[in-house]
Amino acid sequence: MKTIGIIGGGQLGKMTILEARKMSIPTIVLTTEHPSPASEISNDYIVGDLYDDEKILELANKCDVVTYEIEHINVKILKEIENQGKKVYPSSNVIEIIQDKSKQKKLLNNYNIPTSYWEYVDKNNLKIQIEKFGFPVVQKSCTGGYDGKGVFILKSKDDIKNIIKEESYFEKYIKCKKELAIMIARNTNGEIKTYPVVEMAFDEKTNICDTVIVPAQISKEIGEKAKKIAIECIKALDGIGIFGIEFFLTEDDEILVNEIAPRPHNSGHYTIEACTTSQYEQFLRAILNYPLGDTTLLSNACMINILGEDGYHGKTKIKNEEEVFKLPKTYLHIYGKRETRPFRKMGHITVLNKDINKAISNAKAAREKLKIISDSLG
Amino acid sequence: MKTIGIIGGGQLGKMTILEARKMSIPTIVLTTEHPSPASEISNDYIVGDLYDDEKILELANKCDVVTYEIEHINVKILKEIENQGKKVYPSSNVIEIIQDKSKQKKLLNNYNIPTSYWEYVDKNNLKIQIEKFGFPVVQKSCTGGYDGKGVFILKSKDDIKNIIKEESYFEKYIKCKKELAIMIARNTNGEIKTYPVVEMAFDEKTNICDTVIVPAQISKEIGEKAKKIAIECIKALDGIGIFGIEFFLTEDDEILVNEIAPRPHNSGHYTIEACTTSQYEQFLRAILNYPLGDTTLLSNACMINILGEDGYHGKTKIKNEEEVFKLPKTYLHIYGKRETRPFRKMGHITVLNKDINKAISNAKAAREKLKIISDSLG
Repeated sequence: MKTIGIIGGGQLGKMTILEARKMSIPTIVLTTEHPSPASEISNDYIVGDLYDDEKILELANKCDVVTYEIEHINVKILKEIENQGKKVYPSSNVIEIIQDKSKQKKLLNNYNIPTSYWEYVDKNNLKIQIEKFGFPVVQKSCTGGYDGKGVFILKSKDDIKNIIKEESYFEKYIKCKKELAIMIARNTNGEIKTYPVVEMAFDEKTNICDTVIVPAQISKEIGEKAKKIAIECIKALDGIGIFGIEFFLTEDDEILVNEIAPRPHNSGHYTIEACTTSQYEQFLRAILNYPLGDTTLLSNACMINILGEDGYHGKTKIKNEEEVFKLPKTYLHIYGKRETRPFRKMGHITVLNKDINKAISNAKAAREKLKIISDSLG
Repeated sequence: MKTIGIIGGGQLGKMTILEARKMSIPTIVLTTEHPSPASEISNDYIVGDLYDDEKILELANKCDVVTYEIEHINVKILKEIENQGKKVYPSSNVIEIIQDKSKQKKLLNNYNIPTSYWEYVDKNNLKIQIEKFGFPVVQKSCTGGYDGKGVFILKSKDDIKNIIKEESYFEKYIKCKKELAIMIARNTNGEIKTYPVVEMAFDEKTNICDTVIVPAQISKEIGEKAKKIAIECIKALDGIGIFGIEFFLTEDDEILVNEIAPRPHNSGHYTIEACTTSQYEQFLRAILNYPLGDTTLLSNACMINILGEDGYHGKTKIKNEEEVFKLPKTYLHIYGKRETRPFRKMGHITVLNKDINKAISNAKAAREKLKIISDSLG
């Protein structure tokens, strides 16, 4: 079987490799440290900076298909690998567009895919520009944003002095009913499969996607519309692999694309237990150009992130995991990160239940019990 | 979390460790070779003979709970480990009984659990003894039997000269309607969970369990009876861990216990995709004394073994795996054994389908396409 090279050693790589191991598909990981969640179960690994061109070339030389579990990587070196005739999925063109959120928006707008209204920040004309948007207004860095970083919400004139300095754009603040997401896969034959529309809830403190409810509690029409837009997105990108498409559902039931992740996504973790084919197996199928798998939802589900407890830095300690096992149809995922930090993504829990409210309450109960701490407060 | 030490580096260890990795439960494997299916994904491994007492003690020293994925191990050293205060699950008492099929039978008979009628082979009285049983009669080695080895069926007087020489017993040949099996788990608190009754079909050529059909196509009464007997078995054994109980269903709808496997079992592979909790996660829960998981069957299923193609010895090559991905709800498991041999267990395929006949035909279609071969015929 073909060997897959993965740039990044985190949990998305790990969960991909767990699926690959099931089928004995060989993997090799470029990781900044070993052991890491992904490198400790891959067939081989290279320790190095994820921006180190030589290390990426070394990885490419050792595998048949290059992919990545993070989007902050050097596009130039991916292009070089492609020019050498090696497959990179999603392609360098896709990641180039995704990395710069303004390019993402431009592409989507060119294809008439709805997004919130936006404009590049014009530093020479700041006041007039902001007046046009009104408060609150969202400012986003073109590049480098992640899990709430690179996003600044200006609530009043007082915030103007604190605006993001690097290249950025203003975006209309969307008062949304819900944030939705869809996982969608496309293989090199152009076959496309969408997963159910899910609903995301974000932690107010950390702005990290916190809880995923499946299926989203929305009308059938809105669900179909979201799926249609997701398909348009992946076609516009000419994307091969698996993608998480995030949406705003506005108060007027408009669906706007917020952003696109070119990889397995937090909002798709639930697929491991709740769908016929997990997002990770689907990812492998897509980039190895196998037929895509069935995406039927087998059960309603709630996924909740397990973050490092506030106040704790240092060697990871897991507390009260037995409490999680007491809850029905509750699945514990611990990523195996050796060091915990406040709000670091350390694991997740998925709960299945016919009754979505029970799934949510059980997931919350599990998270309240389970603690990721370290020996000493730090 | 507690570290689990596993004696054996094969596919049962591998699939257990895949579940352990999900939760970052640390594992260490004693394996005769590395890489092996289990040792290449465990946190640590020891290379050594599985009968080497020193290596087993080394394993025990490095973990909190000792278990095994094969039953042919030295009981004495397990007793020594237990005497040192370390947990061994299933306990040395259990494995001691299981290893000697005549002891297994005796125990079951003591608890009035039905088995086929049997007698120790009396070499001084062979002819009279065989006459009593009549032909065909089954002869089984007390110890060392596995996947059809250690079993001899005497069809006529001509076979008497070829009987098994080591300690053995005769067993009444059961003309059975079906062979059934149940996975059953029990934790240290005495909590018990049973899985659905499955139906096993054996390959005539190799006598290896070949196809598992879930649920068994039997009446509800027979299913309930089999479950009741399985519970009696695990209680009689005082077993902690997960057990595969194999049954004969006679033409008179009697249920006889054939034998007991004190570990995850081929007939339970289907649980990975078809049940809420897989046999592997259940195994971990049982030996770590967590509450046991829900065993609900989510879909009808058929599991089929993938054996090394006849005629091929050497470095494993997988052919036509893409054909498997074309089939709906079909899951490919390749164990990652580096060397193939004729009829060696190299993987399995599970197919889910509401319609059990479709599951069976898709599983057979998958197996017809997929071939495990090597570069050269050998």
